[in-house]
Amino acid sequence: VDRRRFLTTLGAAALPWRAHGGDLPHTDAARLRSHLERLSEFGRPPGGTFADGVSRIAYTQADIGGRAYVMSLMRDAGLAPRIDPAGNIFARLQSSTNEPARQPANLPILVGSHIDSVPNGGNFDGDLGSLAAIEAVRMLTSTGVRTRHPLEVVVWAEEEGAAYGRSLSGSRAVVGELPSSELELVVDGVTKGDAIRRIGGDPSRLEAARRQPASLHTYLELHIEQGGTLEKSGVPIGVVEGIVSIERLDVTVRGFANHAGTTPMGERQDALVAAAQLILAIREIVTRVPGRQVGTVGKLEVAPNATNVIPGTVKHTIDLRDLDASKLTRIATDIRERAAAIAAATRTEIEVARVTHHDPALAAPGVQQAIASSAEALGLKWMRMPSGAGHDAQMAARLGPMGMIFVPSVGGISHSPRELTTWEDCARGADVLLRTILAVDQADSVRSLL
Amino acid sequence: VDRRRFLTTLGAAALPWRAHGGDLPHTDAARLRSHLERLSEFGRPPGGTFADGVSRIAYTQADIGGRAYVMSLMRDAGLAPRIDPAGNIFARLQSSTNEPARQPANLPILVGSHIDSVPNGGNFDGDLGSLAAIEAVRMLTSTGVRTRHPLEVVVWAEEEGAAYGRSLSGSRAVVGELPSSELELVVDGVTKGDAIRRIGGDPSRLEAARRQPASLHTYLELHIEQGGTLEKSGVPIGVVEGIVSIERLDVTVRGFANHAGTTPMGERQDALVAAAQLILAIREIVTRVPGRQVGTVGKLEVAPNATNVIPGTVKHTIDLRDLDASKLTRIATDIRERAAAIAAATRTEIEVARVTHHDPALAAPGVQQAIASSAEALGLKWMRMPSGAGHDAQMAARLGPMGMIFVPSVGGISHSPRELTTWEDCARGADVLLRTILAVDQADSVRSLL
Repeated sequence: VDRRRFLTTLGAAALPWRAHGGDLPHTDAARLRSHLERLSEFGRPPGGTFADGVSRIAYTQADIGGRAYVMSLMRDAGLAPRIDPAGNIFARLQSSTNEPARQPANLPILVGSHIDSVPNGGNFDGDLGSLAAIEAVRMLTSTGVRTRHPLEVVVWAEEEGAAYGRSLSGSRAVVGELPSSELELVVDGVTKGDAIRRIGGDPSRLEAARRQPASLHTYLELHIEQGGTLEKSGVPIGVVEGIVSIERLDVTVRGFANHAGTTPMGERQDALVAAAQLILAIREIVTRVPGRQVGTVGKLEVAPNATNVIPGTVKHTIDLRDLDASKLTRIATDIRERAAAIAAATRTEIEVARVTHHDPALAAPGVQQAIASSAEALGLKWMRMPSGAGHDAQMAARLGPMGMIFVPSVGGISHSPRELTTWEDCARGADVLLRTILAVDQADSVRSLL
Repeated sequence: VDRRRFLTTLGAAALPWRAHGGDLPHTDAARLRSHLERLSEFGRPPGGTFADGVSRIAYTQADIGGRAYVMSLMRDAGLAPRIDPAGNIFARLQSSTNEPARQPANLPILVGSHIDSVPNGGNFDGDLGSLAAIEAVRMLTSTGVRTRHPLEVVVWAEEEGAAYGRSLSGSRAVVGELPSSELELVVDGVTKGDAIRRIGGDPSRLEAARRQPASLHTYLELHIEQGGTLEKSGVPIGVVEGIVSIERLDVTVRGFANHAGTTPMGERQDALVAAAQLILAIREIVTRVPGRQVGTVGKLEVAPNATNVIPGTVKHTIDLRDLDASKLTRIATDIRERAAAIAAATRTEIEVARVTHHDPALAAPGVQQAIASSAEALGLKWMRMPSGAGHDAQMAARLGPMGMIFVPSVGGISHSPRELTTWEDCARGADVLLRTILAVDQADSVRSLL
């Protein structure tokens, strides 16, 4: 990691909080903890404790209650929350700047995350970044520090997609990628449009939720890593290089279903044997070159799926991720070649179809530098890393320079009640977030952050 | 195959029909075909033809209609059908013997099969053996040939187990292995006991369905092979050596479900990768020694089974079959050893549990010889082979010397509307069945057939 080059652009010597009269105080870890613990009550399993995690599915009563609590924290911090037509909560800091907010060039710094969860999820995914953003603002107002750019906090609607199967709903709406047809999706008799109405949105005015490209000075999001790399490396701060490209393939293996007792081994066209070969080939192809690329066969279905019948058809998914989309294309090509060879050897047919492709969303180099220099100033080790998971930040990256800060996930566990980040690491992340806000605030133009 | 030794015991020169004045006529192939075609109308898909197969699930109206048709054919052939308490149709030939039927030593020759099918099954599995048994009796009565032993035809109830998930229901009842608790099984609101009542059985008298060990002179069943060995070998007659031993194992692979994007390849405990290794190991272990043993992973379930989650748990079955149960024990031991090695290498836990074990049911050597000599006398090639599928014959084998005749399945396809045996091969099988009845009839004692 070339730390030196990072630090020269903004320069530790020019770190902005020095201009405000000495070091800022550290984040109040106990206070941040108490807010996270209070938020966790919305969607907690009946009779459970904080350790039992949370089911705060978007648009449910738990979500609505959690959002009301978060808006109360916003108001306490001097923020003025409003709900946009997509259900996102945006909250501007009242008079957060010395310069007139209406001047078009004076773009806001947007900071936030989400508070919806997966079913049986954890208390840190999204919650930490949302509450730390509010804490950062509170710290600025309580210490009298003013930023040059307007400050805005966001809590995105339905990040997880646990309600209607489509993630990043709120942030997609803001970049114009929530198609109106999606509002017609029905779950438990309720359309997604009506669900958005429940949380205070107005789906009939969805277009008004859009924000324009180049309309943000910076977007910042603190988030748990959801993997085990930081913990294993003993590093408290991850400087996210970008959110990976995702290539999704669907595989169909067609053999011939036949009697498990009467069909000699040599006569079989066993779709599951072919799929097993392909699953191992995928792992080998993904791991044979250096890098952080990952490949997963997560979902697999066998037909007819009976003890005494040779599998006739196997369908499975492939999920490939890397910051470099061209690497994924090469891996997918290798997988297709191997699939053809396996099909020939096992006398099956194997079809590999691309389902979706998402380009990577790269973090702005200047924002990465600001995060790294903030960690340095706090004496915290940091490392660069990709985000293997999707985040609202990938949508926000279309509106301005984006940066994400990761903090360690104990055991790399996420989307589970066992999801955990130590209170100390939570506070460290919040410290870096606040200092990064002030660092990017020093940049006069978006261009200098890119 | 040691044909010579086979032929010496009963001896082609002593074939019984020569004692009845020259060769018996061949089976009337057109008549057998018309009966099979007529039977196929019971359970035929609406608007379909013979080629669309049959869904004659036990105890349904289709089954009841098919059974009534079969009983009418029995009566035409001079048989007197009765329904036993388990719903099996037994039909004695009136005055089929010159010797008094009530003499205990004068044990009957029982011949038959079943007519129930799997859903979307074929027209030959069971049907052929049932109708060929009736044709054999008709041929004997029409040509005036009398047997020394009483002749009895059976159509077993619920062989396939498609109705209540338990196969060989009728034949298990006859050997006392249908537990009364099974009568309480409920499907679509109907208990198995009531279902048996529907087809004329009397489950309250189930014990009266039992027949005693050593109560049969011989049990014979003609059946389609349901595999592709006879067809590939160009041999029309299979002399079944026995019904294989079946060892069923359940495997549970426990890894750790984690995020497909954030968990580096080296940190994964992927239950599906481990299962894929085990599936390929099972195939390798089963095929590395010569023999006709087979091993199948037919059913597999992944949890949580989501595109973007590393599989945490995989459960799958293993079905192992061979005539030699000790070979299966060795294979199962090898699989357990390999599973332990794979678990260690993939950092998963793999549990292998025995679910069921069925001992093989061997065909009596004397009956095998009778089948082989009958084929020889007809100028038909034959080969010895195991039955990889279960049959009522495996239960009947407990009551006396058992033999099964296989005829070729085109393409080895079974339990499918595409199940097919040529009319010529059907008639050849019926020819061999009839001549085998007469051959075993020449044996004075059960002991000489063992």
